[in-house]
Order: sequence, then structure tokens, then C-alpha cells
Amino acid sequence: MSETGEGPLHVTRQFGQNSIIQPLLTDLYQITMAYAYWKSEKTKDYAVFDLFFRKNPFQGEFTIFAGLEECLKFLEKFCYSQSDIDYLKATLPPSTEEDFFEFLSTLTTKEVKLYALAEGSVAFPRVPMIRIEGPLAVVQLLETTLLTLVNYASLMATNAARYRIAAGNLMLFEFGLRRAQGPDGGLSASKYSYIGGFDATSNVLAGKLYNIPVKGTHAHAYITSFNGFSELKNTILQPKTGGKPKDLLKIALTWKERLLPIFNVISSEASEGELAALISFAIAFPDEFMALVDTYEVQRSGLLNYCSVALALNELGYRAVGIRLDSGDLSYLSNIARHYFVEISEKYNIPWFEHQTIMASNDLNEDTIISLNEQGHKINCFGIGTHLVTCQRQPALGCVYKMVELNHYPRIKLSQEVSKVTMPGSKNVYRLYSERGHALVDLLQRSTEPPPSVDGKILCRHPFEESKRAYVKPSRVEQLLELYWADGRIIKELPSLQEIRERVSNSLKTLRSDIKRNLNPTPYKVAVSDDLYHFIHDQWLKNAPIGELF
Amino acid sequence: MSETGEGPLHVTRQFGQNSIIQPLLTDLYQITMAYAYWKSEKTKDYAVFDLFFRKNPFQGEFTIFAGLEECLKFLEKFCYSQSDIDYLKATLPPSTEEDFFEFLSTLTTKEVKLYALAEGSVAFPRVPMIRIEGPLAVVQLLETTLLTLVNYASLMATNAARYRIAAGNLMLFEFGLRRAQGPDGGLSASKYSYIGGFDATSNVLAGKLYNIPVKGTHAHAYITSFNGFSELKNTILQPKTGGKPKDLLKIALTWKERLLPIFNVISSEASEGELAALISFAIAFPDEFMALVDTYEVQRSGLLNYCSVALALNELGYRAVGIRLDSGDLSYLSNIARHYFVEISEKYNIPWFEHQTIMASNDLNEDTIISLNEQGHKINCFGIGTHLVTCQRQPALGCVYKMVELNHYPRIKLSQEVSKVTMPGSKNVYRLYSERGHALVDLLQRSTEPPPSVDGKILCRHPFEESKRAYVKPSRVEQLLELYWADGRIIKELPSLQEIRERVSNSLKTLRSDIKRNLNPTPYKVAVSDDLYHFIHDQWLKNAPIGELF
Repeated sequence: MSETGEGPLHVTRQFGQNSIIQPLLTDLYQITMAYAYWKSEKTKDYAVFDLFFRKNPFQGEFTIFAGLEECLKFLEKFCYSQSDIDYLKATLPPSTEEDFFEFLSTLTTKEVKLYALAEGSVAFPRVPMIRIEGPLAVVQLLETTLLTLVNYASLMATNAARYRIAAGNLMLFEFGLRRAQGPDGGLSASKYSYIGGFDATSNVLAGKLYNIPVKGTHAHAYITSFNGFSELKNTILQPKTGGKPKDLLKIALTWKERLLPIFNVISSEASEGELAALISFAIAFPDEFMALVDTYEVQRSGLLNYCSVALALNELGYRAVGIRLDSGDLSYLSNIARHYFVEISEKYNIPWFEHQTIMASNDLNEDTIISLNEQGHKINCFGIGTHLVTCQRQPALGCVYKMVELNHYPRIKLSQEVSKVTMPGSKNVYRLYSERGHALVDLLQRSTEPPPSVDGKILCRHPFEESKRAYVKPSRVEQLLELYWADGRIIKELPSLQEIRERVSNSLKTLRSDIKRNLNPTPYKVAVSDDLYHFIHDQWLKNAPIGELF
Repeated sequence: MSETGEGPLHVTRQFGQNSIIQPLLTDLYQITMAYAYWKSEKTKDYAVFDLFFRKNPFQGEFTIFAGLEECLKFLEKFCYSQSDIDYLKATLPPSTEEDFFEFLSTLTTKEVKLYALAEGSVAFPRVPMIRIEGPLAVVQLLETTLLTLVNYASLMATNAARYRIAAGNLMLFEFGLRRAQGPDGGLSASKYSYIGGFDATSNVLAGKLYNIPVKGTHAHAYITSFNGFSELKNTILQPKTGGKPKDLLKIALTWKERLLPIFNVISSEASEGELAALISFAIAFPDEFMALVDTYEVQRSGLLNYCSVALALNELGYRAVGIRLDSGDLSYLSNIARHYFVEISEKYNIPWFEHQTIMASNDLNEDTIISLNEQGHKINCFGIGTHLVTCQRQPALGCVYKMVELNHYPRIKLSQEVSKVTMPGSKNVYRLYSERGHALVDLLQRSTEPPPSVDGKILCRHPFEESKRAYVKPSRVEQLLELYWADGRIIKELPSLQEIRERVSNSLKTLRSDIKRNLNPTPYKVAVSDDLYHFIHDQWLKNAPIGELF
């Protein structure tokens, strides 16, 4: 891990890559296959592989493609070290020939070409997100690592984008590090949920490495670490605009007395330890005071104490930020909290008071947010942990990496299930747009076909169902796969994290809302050209053995 | 990442730790709390925290504790770098005092004490897996990272242990890297599934770093990369015991002719490309020949081709290893395969032939294995990917880290839900065993109580239900929490990965089988001493505000 001292905007790429991403981060069978290819003199056969998935995650109808930059960095540093070679010598059978290890140790990705969708684009089943070509042995050796890098990144970005759709314009913070699948799972979760549309993370290292905004206040432990006022070493705060320091506790206690009738509670119901904790926190962060209010009882203790401190801060010229609710009925409690904020705002003529942030953060998921929306709530900001980072609803995307061409001859993987039959041959992908800017269909063609033209009617066929065909007259045609890696280097300028995040947002805007909705979304159409249709079916018949009567 | 040249047995610890595990891999609120504690002069308050979970994962009734070694390594290297401090200065509000950063930069874990269960022990809800004590600020700052390190490790080890129970004595291989949640997720999955009872992994880096056996053969792509015999550059193999090299293809074709009537197929039904691929693979790995047989059709092509090559190898003195099934009805196909192995074994008097390995690997999970067991199958070995590594059934364990004592005064976190109320005070934990060696109950006591004695009757109480009490007369008492970290260093010899794996196995043997079963397992009992019972309830009453009528 290395960093340079340059500006934060390019930290992502300058940071380099987690050092565990290396050629041995792969399945052993890639290496045994490489040896068998080597023995068969097939290592230089020219192979084309497609990396794609078969089904959108989360019962949805779209996926965000992410992880490309990590894949390219991996290609950049792909090289077996001497210690890797030593380990492989000790691991492969003793009969493995010495020259093979020599071959491995000189292997590079120089002759590899990698085409891909732009990182952050929406992607759909069966459409190659990556097409990779080059000498069979090396392209095969890249499989597992590329899958690992794309699978979780895309799953996570998609999950985050779905939360973003559910939450509309509300703020979304990612709080998942402690529940992530390993430390790097946590780091990737922060990065790709930011790409997918989250506003900030609690993960400080992600903030540092990727220049993502970081957020956080305090835990219940902070509140419970105070028993009462006697533990406060200091209650004095300088007013924001200068002047004589004042006793924040004293002012807060005065406000508390005034608020008791509004909250309809007696003083003893509100925890003194909680108030002491909030006073100490406000003194540390007078300009960013945000408080957890559910340690004891939200309405009778937390809210009352919070408002007392917020009003005391207001007297000294500071504006409190808001509260966090971490348990209970979030819809109800947020309405209660907003109600008091409004009442106090009006009663004491403090207009900003009613607009304070209400953050909610208790084991939320996409469905909870949708349900809260239906119930009506007054939350401004959601903090999401476990369900976001583990992608609980579907914890793996299931990308595959399939050979489609070898030495310029098509390769097809047959299967009893039609959905698992691969589309043979090297292909290009075009996205056709309507006049209103909506994506209509992704069209796969053979690489040898000319791109579809904007003027003409384009025949789009279902890849397997003969009778499903339609003519499309697009207003715009976008070529989706672009060359990112050739001659041993990254040949396109890579976007910043912020630019990828914008692409996600813009790319999703091109989808009709019925494709994006949570319940029973409409599938997006993926079609093949007439030429590719016939090519697939020719290959299929050519390769399917004539077998038993069906 | 550094390695030494010493023996492989201690690679795990010598390897050090993924460099992303560092103090900033935490939630921002830990640092804002640290600042507020610093402002309140509370950083040196003596705090005790418990790390525990509330519910066993996977609808089960046990959990394997793992991740301890990683936690200790983290304590060992805990230190804010200058670049961390610079980042925090730019991130915290401008009002943050300069001296706080000085404080952070000198912070160490020297005054911290960490007690823990032995890594690989079975653990139960509410029982602290780790008790950690020391100055409030630093112990609080460790929270998120420790949770991250324990959560996934324990979840993964537990998941693996459950597969081990379901699979009995069959071999279990972990094949999940490509579907793991990030590269480190994949590496942790390999490590902790080995601990939980898996026999090997496909992940080469995990093999290298942790000295775990690695396994793998080839993918469908290998099979489809051959179209026919004309692509075979070499078909000659030297017999195992020396002598004149022979043409393996020619011998295999002779065997294929002989086998056609046994398999009841005509020659054209079996793929020539598949046979070519298997020949080339057998030449590369004559002593470890294992083949994927479902690329085209298992019975009519894959099995026939495999048996032809295996019998040809046999003529040259090599013993083939077996087959892998990656699709279809695994119970049915494994029975078919075994049937042919037996028939050929008898017909040609080759006793070992019937015992060849049948590996299955298609999207398997715990329930599939149990279902296969019920159907009857002839599989020797399962390769498990997605469901294992993502812990699909429950992708997060939900460990928490709660303050239980501050400056020697108990702390309690109350909640509307009784199950979320913490058990206050510093506690010890004892496991009481029956005469037959079964674990009967985990007993929590106040740290000040003497350990329970083997002779006496010990009153074990339900922590919250007054009437649930029982006397237990244990044959053995085990103190579960031991001191691992003190005076700034690891003070106990840590076990090797292999030893931790054995502890898992031995620890599970102490549980009655009804606690371990898949369906409706019996909960294991966790009890408190009479003293602790009263202490909890005193604290509860003392801290619960007198509120509304219930």
C-alpha cells in the first residue's frame, strides 16, 4: 500500500490496490489447466471470453456494472513472483515439468485486450460486461480474479442504487463496516455504495482512501458512560461569535424546565446521565451537534434532553444538527420528533429549529424504507448497515466467464437449460435509445457486423424464441463495449469515483421507471441481430449431439 | 505483506496481516467520541466491554468463535500514522483542538487487557467471546475493527462446521472465491472454512498463506477448448513404471469401443472434443487425473469418455482419481456413475476402479447435502461455493460490543426488548460438563466471585426469568475466558490453524447432538449465578426510569 502526497481527488488510483489482489488469488484449476494447455501447446491459441451474469439481483431488472478499475489495475500488475513459483512447484504434482514454471514466471498481460462497459453503466443479463481476448493460457488464468473483482462490486453498487431509488432525495449513509464480510468487504462496500448513490460512509479508511465523505456522531456507549452532572469536568462554552464563555449545562437546565410542559413529562423521567453526555458532546462539537436519543426513552428523555441542549447552543449562536433514532417505531418516533421541533420552532421563533435532521438507523433495508415511505415519516437521512453491505437479499451476483471463440472459431457451452446456453463468437453490444432518451433494447451483434445505424429500422430478435422479433428505429445508438486494455497498458482515461457515481445516476435515468420499480418490474429487452441469431442456432445444432428421443 | 523463509506451519502468523486492517478501518463516530471523551477528561476512565452476539446464526443453536488471532495482531500494530492524523485533521471540525491529535498519535494498546474464549471454541448467545478492559478512549476506538474481525470469521467458521456436520465423513472442498464478497472475503472464507472442518480450498493464495491444502482440476472451458483429436499435439505417455511410451489416445479409443455396449450408446453420441480434452489432461496429470464429465451429456458422453481414459491410464500403470459432476440430478448421476465404476471394476477385475472419487459441485448448500443424504447418493466429495462463502442463509452474525463497567461501576444498556438488555459488570464464564463429557451449561458470574467448584451443587439461573433455576453438579468446570493480551503484547502461545481446526471438532463433540441438529435444534443453556442474577436486576431497577403506566 502506497500513497502519494498529491491531491485527494485521485487518491483512488494513486492508492494502488489491496496487495492481496495478485495472480495467486485464483482457483487452483486455472493453474492446472494452464499446465495442461502448456503440455498441449495451446497456450498461445487466441481465445475470446465473455464475462456476464444471467439474472439481475434482488428480484430486480437492472444491474450496475462496477469493479472495472480494479480489474485493470490487476492486469497492470499481473506477474508471478518467485515465491509464487516456489509455492506452485511445491503444490503441483512432482511430474510437472520445470519449463512450465519458467513459462509462468515470464507471463504478462501484454497481448491481452480487454473491452468493457463504462464503469457505473446499467447492465443486463447475458450482455457481456467485459470481453477479453488474448492467448488462451493467460486469459484463462485471469478468470477467477476478474470474477471476484466484478461480482461483489457490481452487486454492491446495484444494491446501493436500489436504496437510492427507494429513498428518493433523502440522505443515505453507509454504516456497515462492523457487519461486512471481512475488512476488505467493508472497504469495498463503502466504495461501491458511494458509487451507487450513497452520500457518505462511517468507514474512515474508505474516506481516506477514496475521498468519500465520512459521517458519525456517537454510540449508546457514549451516553451510558455518563451517570450524572457530577462527572462533567467542564460545562463552559465560548459563544460562537465570541464574548464571555457561558455555562452550557446551566442554560440547558433552564430550557429543560421550560420544555417539561411541552413534553408533558416530569423532570425525573429524563435521564441525567444522558443530559450530561449530550452536554459534553455539544461542548466538543458545538457546530455539529447531533445526538442519539434512544438510549433510555425517546420522547420522555432523549428528545427532551436533546432539545434542551440544542436550545442552549442556540443561545450561544450555534445551530444543532439533529438526532438519530436507532430503535423503535421509526415512522411514529420521527413524526413525534418533528412535531416537537416544529412546536418549539414556533413557540420560541427559531425558524431553523423545525428543519433539524432526523436520522434513522435500525437494521434498515430497501423494503423497510419503502414501508416507511408508505406509512409517512419525517426522516431526512437513513444510516444503513448489515442489509446493505452483506446484500442480504441476494449475497452473490453470479457472474460467469465463458469462452466464446478460440482461434477465430466459435465456442458454445450447451446446457439442458436454455438460459445457460452461451452465445458463441466475439460480439459487440449496442444500446438503442428512443427519441425521449429512454434505453429501448441492448442489441448483441457479431463483431464482424457493421454497427446499427440511426436512420434504419433494426431487426431485434429474441436469442432463443424464433417468433419473438421486432423492428426498432432508434434515435441514438451507443456502442457499449470499449477497449480499455491493450499493449500492456490502460489505454483510456479512467473516470474518478465521483464521475462513476454520476454515470450510475445518469445511466439509471435512461431506464423507464417500470424497469426500476421494486415490485414486479418490467424486464429490459436484450436482443440479438438476425445474423447472430442464425449463427447461434447453427452452432447449437452443430454442437448438440444427436441423442435420445426427447 | 511480508513473509519469511521459515517452515510453512507458521505461515499464518509470519505472514502478518492484510495491511488494510489498521486503526482507521473504523467508524468515524469512534473518533468523534474519542474527542468528546478527551474534552471531558474521560479518556483514562477504566472501561470494560463485552463482545458477544445475541442469536446463533443459521437457525442453529451453536456458533464457532473465530478471528481472535486477527484481533490480537491488530492490537499489536495499533498506531495512528502521520498520514492518518493528517487525514483526521482535515476531516474533523476545524474547532477540534490540536492537542487531541497529539494524544491520538501517541495512543497505544499497552494498558489494554483482552480476555477471550479459545479460538475455535463453540460459543453461545450473550456469553462474552471477548472481554476487553483498559482506558476508555482506546478500548472504544477498537470496537469496529474488532467486530469486523470477529463477525465474519465466526460466521464463516460456524457455517463451515454446519456443512461438516451435514456431510459426515465425506470430503468438503471450498470453491467460493469467485462469488465471495471481495478478495479478502474470499481469503477469509478459505481460512475459516478450513477451521470449521473443510478439507481443502481451491483458493491458491489461501493455500500459500495459510498452508491449507488446495484442490482443483479444470473448468468447462477446458473441455470446450478442444474440438477433436486433430487438435492434440501429443498423445504419447510414458508408463508409470517406465518402459516404452505409448499412445494414450489409441488405447483409450480401444477401451471406448469395448465400453459402448456397457453404456448402451453409439460412438457418435460421445463428444470427440471432450475425449480429446480428457486425453490432454490425463497426459498432463496422469497420476491425478480427475475430470469434469457434464460438459455435454454425463452418461452418454462424459462418463464413457472418462472411463475410456481412466482404463487407458490403468494400462500404463496410473490410477485415475475420479469425476466431478457440476449440474443435473446429483443423486441420480452419482448412482449411475458408481454403477458403471462397479460394473467395469468387476468385469475387468480392477478393484480400485469402483472406489474412484465422485465429486459434486453445483450450487450446493447445507440443505442440499441433507436432501442428497436422504435421497441416497454415491458422492465422496462436495465442492461448495456461493452458499458457503456468502453465508447466504444469514450473511452477518451481528456481534455487538457493549460497555459493562466504567471506573469499576457497572453499566447497563436498557432496552424495550428484554433480549437486548446487557448484563452489567465484569464477568467470568465457566462451562460445566457432565460425567459423560457433555457441556451442560455456560455459567456467567461476577468477576469477583470464586470459580464454581466441581464438588458442589451450583445454582444456575435464567438471567431474566425469576422462576427458571436449576442445581447442576458438574464433573468438570472449564474457565472459558483467558487473558491473551496484556502489557502491550500477546501473552499466550497462539495455536496453529490446524490446532484451531481440531479445537472446533473437539469442541463440537462436547455438544449433545440434539443441539447440533439441523431441524429444530435444542437451545444450549446459558445461565447466571445467583449473585449475578441479583446484581443484574438491581442495576436494571436502578437505571430504568419510572415512567408511564405499562
